Amino acid sequence: METMAECLFCRIAAGEVAAPIVYEDGECLAFLDHRPLFPGHVLLIPRRHYETLPDLPATDVGPFFATAQVLCRAVEEAMQAEGSLVAINNRVSQSVPHLHVHIVPRRRKDGLRGFFWPRRPYRDDAETESVRAAVHEAIERLRKSK
Amino acid sequence: METMAECLFCRIAAGEVAAPIVYEDGECLAFLDHRPLFPGHVLLIPRRHYETLPDLPATDVGPFFATAQVLCRAVEEAMQAEGSLVAINNRVSQSVPHLHVHIVPRRRKDGLRGFFWPRRPYRDDAETESVRAAVHEAIERLRKSK
Repeated sequence: METMAECLFCRIAAGEVAAPIVYEDGECLAFLDHRPLFPGHVLLIPRRHYETLPDLPATDVGPFFATAQVLCRAVEEAMQAEGSLVAINNRVSQSVPHLHVHIVPRRRKDGLRGFFWPRRPYRDDAETESVRAAVHEAIERLRKSK
Repeated sequence: METMAECLFCRIAAGEVAAPIVYEDGECLAFLDHRPLFPGHVLLIPRRHYETLPDLPATDVGPFFATAQVLCRAVEEAMQAEGSLVAINNRVSQSVPHLHVHIVPRRRKDGLRGFFWPRRPYRDDAETESVRAAVHEAIERLRKSK
């Protein structure tokens, strides 16, 4: 099992650090965030240590997000929420460098309205096209190198 | 193909509405958000109409998030970003009711620091345990009913 001795989430997965666990199986573990955005805010992690979403092996992706699907429904039902936020921070804003999916119960007017703010349109079609082409080319390059 | 005539993202997938597309295959489509949080902000959608993440069929989950992995790397590379945010709004804060994954390039001190704020700890162990038990029971119920 790939673990890092100094990683908090590896230690939770190994049972060395206690956490309010809501679900676990052989591959992953979910527990309450200790400083929730709203009560019921869950973190889903793979047991093995991977830093970011792109680092998760292809064979693990399906089962991992199938579990995230169940957790969405469960968090919404348990907290009588109207919806949920699923979020992954890769490196920036990532407090623990062990892949974790935030699953957060949401209600309308719960105060998170500013979450996707500020946003601004592209200046003009030329800026849009230049960004589109750059992202498109990176995707093609990455897919070929796989 | 499951589509909804009035759904903007179904219309983009069908080629009826133009969008700056960065990737497409038989199952999914990715294009630039027209009002990005930061330039290079991409939306990944399944071609078929599903409202939320839990609605995506189990067989589609693996390929869909494998594509999200490639998009993370591509957006980071193309925009010379230090990281990325992957986010899904289920119903609340969901502007178009067709499942879409936001993939947003991030830099340190890019102004999104308040993204997960305010947060507060649980009042006491009793509150933590009551929430933990509620979520855990919902997960067990949902897994049994599958």
